[in-house]
Amino acid sequence: MRAYFNSDNYAPVLPEVMDALAAVNRGHEPAYGADAVTARVQGLLRAEFGEHAQGFLVLNGTGANVVGLRALLQPWQGVVCAESAHLNVDEGGAPERVGGIKLLAVPAPDGKLTPELVASKIERIGDEHAIQPGVVSVTQSTELGTLYTPDELRALADHAHGHGMRLHVDGARLANAAEALGVELREITTDAGADVVSFGGTKAGLMLGEAIVLLGDGLEPALPYLRKQSMQLASKMRYVAAQFEALLTDGLWRQAAGRANAMAARLAAALEGADGVRITQRVQANVVFAVLPPGVAERLQAEWGFYTWNEHTGEVRWMCSHDTRAEDVDAFAAAIRAAVA
Amino acid sequence: MRAYFNSDNYAPVLPEVMDALAAVNRGHEPAYGADAVTARVQGLLRAEFGEHAQGFLVLNGTGANVVGLRALLQPWQGVVCAESAHLNVDEGGAPERVGGIKLLAVPAPDGKLTPELVASKIERIGDEHAIQPGVVSVTQSTELGTLYTPDELRALADHAHGHGMRLHVDGARLANAAEALGVELREITTDAGADVVSFGGTKAGLMLGEAIVLLGDGLEPALPYLRKQSMQLASKMRYVAAQFEALLTDGLWRQAAGRANAMAARLAAALEGADGVRITQRVQANVVFAVLPPGVAERLQAEWGFYTWNEHTGEVRWMCSHDTRAEDVDAFAAAIRAAVA
Amino acid sequence: MRAYFNSDNYAPVLPEVMDALAAVNRGHEPAYGADAVTARVQGLLRAEFGEHAQGFLVLNGTGANVVGLRALLQPWQGVVCAESAHLNVDEGGAPERVGGIKLLAVPAPDGKLTPELVASKIERIGDEHAIQPGVVSVTQSTELGTLYTPDELRALADHAHGHGMRLHVDGARLANAAEALGVELREITTDAGADVVSFGGTKAGLMLGEAIVLLGDGLEPALPYLRKQSMQLASKMRYVAAQFEALLTDGLWRQAAGRANAMAARLAAALEGADGVRITQRVQANVVFAVLPPGVAERLQAEWGFYTWNEHTGEVRWMCSHDTRAEDVDAFAAAIRAAVA
Amino acid sequence: MRAYFNSDNYAPVLPEVMDALAAVNRGHEPAYGADAVTARVQGLLRAEFGEHAQGFLVLNGTGANVVGLRALLQPWQGVVCAESAHLNVDEGGAPERVGGIKLLAVPAPDGKLTPELVASKIERIGDEHAIQPGVVSVTQSTELGTLYTPDELRALADHAHGHGMRLHVDGARLANAAEALGVELREITTDAGADVVSFGGTKAGLMLGEAIVLLGDGLEPALPYLRKQSMQLASKMRYVAAQFEALLTDGLWRQAAGRANAMAARLAAALEGADGVRITQRVQANVVFAVLPPGVAERLQAEWGFYTWNEHTGEVRWMCSHDTRAEDVDAFAAAIRAAVA
Repeated sequence: MRAYFNSDNYAPVLPEVMDALAAVNRGHEPAYGADAVTARVQGLLRAEFGEHAQGFLVLNGTGANVVGLRALLQPWQGVVCAESAHLNVDEGGAPERVGGIKLLAVPAPDGKLTPELVASKIERIGDEHAIQPGVVSVTQSTELGTLYTPDELRALADHAHGHGMRLHVDGARLANAAEALGVELREITTDAGADVVSFGGTKAGLMLGEAIVLLGDGLEPALPYLRKQSMQLASKMRYVAAQFEALLTDGLWRQAAGRANAMAARLAAALEGADGVRITQRVQANVVFAVLPPGVAERLQAEWGFYTWNEHTGEVRWMCSHDTRAEDVDAFAAAIRAAVA
Repeated sequence: MRAYFNSDNYAPVLPEVMDALAAVNRGHEPAYGADAVTARVQGLLRAEFGEHAQGFLVLNGTGANVVGLRALLQPWQGVVCAESAHLNVDEGGAPERVGGIKLLAVPAPDGKLTPELVASKIERIGDEHAIQPGVVSVTQSTELGTLYTPDELRALADHAHGHGMRLHVDGARLANAAEALGVELREITTDAGADVVSFGGTKAGLMLGEAIVLLGDGLEPALPYLRKQSMQLASKMRYVAAQFEALLTDGLWRQAAGRANAMAARLAAALEGADGVRITQRVQANVVFAVLPPGVAERLQAEWGFYTWNEHTGEVRWMCSHDTRAEDVDAFAAAIRAAVA
Repeated sequence: MRAYFNSDNYAPVLPEVMDALAAVNRGHEPAYGADAVTARVQGLLRAEFGEHAQGFLVLNGTGANVVGLRALLQPWQGVVCAESAHLNVDEGGAPERVGGIKLLAVPAPDGKLTPELVASKIERIGDEHAIQPGVVSVTQSTELGTLYTPDELRALADHAHGHGMRLHVDGARLANAAEALGVELREITTDAGADVVSFGGTKAGLMLGEAIVLLGDGLEPALPYLRKQSMQLASKMRYVAAQFEALLTDGLWRQAAGRANAMAARLAAALEGADGVRITQRVQANVVFAVLPPGVAERLQAEWGFYTWNEHTGEVRWMCSHDTRAEDVDAFAAAIRAAVA
Repeated sequence: MRAYFNSDNYAPVLPEVMDALAAVNRGHEPAYGADAVTARVQGLLRAEFGEHAQGFLVLNGTGANVVGLRALLQPWQGVVCAESAHLNVDEGGAPERVGGIKLLAVPAPDGKLTPELVASKIERIGDEHAIQPGVVSVTQSTELGTLYTPDELRALADHAHGHGMRLHVDGARLANAAEALGVELREITTDAGADVVSFGGTKAGLMLGEAIVLLGDGLEPALPYLRKQSMQLASKMRYVAAQFEALLTDGLWRQAAGRANAMAARLAAALEGADGVRITQRVQANVVFAVLPPGVAERLQAEWGFYTWNEHTGEVRWMCSHDTRAEDVDAFAAAIRAAVA
């Protein structure tokens, strides 16, 4: 491949993160999070998400989502989410099979929920035959590369809380969202009323690791048990924590996300006006979705790495990451233009 | 209430069924289905569903569906069903929480799946991130009172089998369907290619009891274990079996269903042309769905028992049962006409 | 068979219960427990179990246990029970597979827990790697036919509550226990400190049906959802309720249990001193356990119905029920004596 | 602390593993295991475990066990294991809650199963009320530091297979076992008849990662789905794979395990004849279990890191790891001797 636009998890680990791993690799440290590095990460997470934030590091994104949702739900409650939510389409049925969680998915062409869309699933309250809506889960940035503004999130949180529900944020790409919006992480989580956040590390440039950040009341006692039981507890936790320490130091998360976002914007700009290239979603974070004339994607895929997103429509996805190079973007855009010409 | 059109499970038990219960209430009988009555029911089910049919009696409809689906599914497979399926909206999350089953629900305005609708969920085959479509589940008659023809079912079965999937029939009202279509039970199950059927007893006039009928290959060894584990095994099984014996003798199921179906047709006919009454679904079995002018349903509900089906649209449901009386239907129709006048 | 001593669920339904079923079989009644009969049963259960008791009728004993335990447990808590508990050995893995519940089983040769035995499972409190003890579950009368006195239960409840745990009583044969002890039902449940009771109907002489009785605080809101989700909600509930109404009227439960208990006592007495018959458990309720010389059980089983309880030791179980006749007991005792002579 | 004997997961990562991580950190690589490093690890695993071995890398030990067992079990089957099995006491109820798996635990004072112990759980075959024994799970080396010989494992495998069961090996410390026994990994897995092995990386010196090795027939198609659904699939898989590549190159696993084993032996030898120190298990791998006079452990724990293993008996555990130093062992032994003097 000349370059990969498949996924931000094809990308290598940030050098600062590799250095941090090397730095903590000395001597014995208590396991399972009782180490000094994890304690420091708690402080860094509080600095980002507020004094009451409680962080719990886990192993991957599906784990972060399922553990966080398990903490929020009674067994008879379900989760309102967009049909395109990772939770709904990319977690291999883990929410249902491992968490026993019913998802109440609503169509959302741009990947974004609204209070109106959520309201369509608030029905039959108190009826034991119907799963009760308990949580609203949004993805920020969405799986389609779009963004919720702080106000939109606040409206969703207020609406959810007003109906006795909680707000969950799948933030596998929260860094990209905050950077693109030019806000602090807390402005699109804590301050907006979120109750639990999956703060993604892997797609932000870590080797592996996500942080479940608890913001709502009363959730903390359950988390250690649910994390362990959900098989998301790392024994040598310092090595997950050290990665987060690096990411949360000196704005590394913002710089890395900024590079990825800029490359997606560059790609979109380079394709502007290209006949035959229909950009299908607003390009707000680090990804571009497009529909190409029949056969073009397949030809391009011989040299360039990217995924067909939708088998039925042929829509393709071009994802940028912290190490995507401007020259690769330019060459790719030129190749696309040539292919559709 | 002057009369109830709430549900066929508001209705009493058929007298023939009560007689059958009294008749088997003598002496000891082996428990858990090793009794003589259950053996006879097996024969009666084979007579209806074909020589290879294997019947397993369970306690309620949710149980029949979940146990049947558990027999059909690998843990990574999901069930394509209509959004309006009982499975999806009326089983309290049992499929997900108890069975670990992800439902792949598709909008179907008349409650009916088609091969095209099913095909929209056949995607990402072999992709471990996506739950794999394993079963198509249809309800016959549907929750909206509509019917699948034998040909429509055969098309669904062929399509499912052609994609390595199986066909499940939620037949909580299978008797109503067969009677309305004027066919034998096997014509809309076995002969149409169904793999597992929930053959409903309760709504057909029993006190309680459903039969899981296995038609596909290789399912039988799992069923006893899954039924017990799913808490659907009656200890004094003869009393469930005796009810089915009565229902399957001398065409009782068809007579009872015929009465219910006729009353729904009578109600629909009596409302024909009534301004302000919009019948929203074809009336093919034992239920009528309608939208009335604002406030009318609430006024009628003071004297007549029926449910508001959809909180958002105000659509109401009028269900008839084996003991619904023509004079009650006529009086109800008159009351509706008066209310909308 | 000349007579059956297999199980109290081989027995027929009490005639009073059959009459009650016939009596409620008229007209429409709201489904799912919103009927008048169920309301009356609530009152009868309060009369037996105290003013704060909340009853929820379910379909079978496994269901009663699993639903009751689900109401008591957090996902990271387990249930301390005797190794011989029905929960542990006779529910097909439903607690684990359907409820996700880990059982902490302790050997108890007479089927009875003690605070000391429970204490052996109270360890690693607060350790997320270890399932936390959350509930003590006792069976009354036990699966081995032995009884807890009110004082023994109170000691278990106090011990459990002192450790932040709750007491669950599997009372599939609670009637037999209360009758044998000569106490009211509440003396071995409510007054002894139980939090949730499965009050058995089927083995007491019903066709089918058990009552989950909530006695502890804060459990009631969850129950309707958990019952439905666990597939234990009967639609035509009046028919389950009517059976309980009969059982709880005029002391029917006590009379029926008394007959069963008396027959077990009679059998044990008739075997006293019989060489080769070793009674292995105290005969306190309606069952006798014994070990016979090799081959004797098999010969007897050709004419008399009973189960081998333990494949490894050859121990057999002789269960009496409300309709066991004195002459059958006497004949059976004589046959046993003859066989071992 | 002067030194830690708490756990082999307190230890740092082997330097060769850190180097390997650095080496693969360049450019994009396909995610989820489609990378070149993972492919090479497959080859290395086949070289160790035989031509038919199929390796699947996962994130932690609980995950490896649960995913492996899910692949082996029908929903109505359980797992025979020792009461002291990690599966039973240290996985937070994950097998039950996440996997729905019932464990059939048998007391085994030295942590080792035998065919006789397993046989005690082979009963009620075909009885739907009883969970059916489907898998025997052994831990090698055991949680108590003892070892199975190849012959013992073969006897267990033959016995299991003879009863239609499969053999699972929890090899979190398989490297320690093979090194201590002086055998190849395949001699205590493949050649002994194991069906699925959890081959531990973390305790062997990795940062994180375990390999599920499939040896039995027909298991491979399920694994990708079960791994993803069980939330054990790493996206940037190359970083898990690179660790295993290092571990499986030039006998690194054997050298690291050898150092740990030698230190445990040294500690045990240094305590030989010490009055008041009762070694409670054979010291065969990298751990020593002992009972000390009352109060001694607590005093030692002020300066030396180690766990109290059993709250009831006061038994302590001293675990050695790849980086445990001889001088620390000697100083610790001297401290123990002084404390009990």
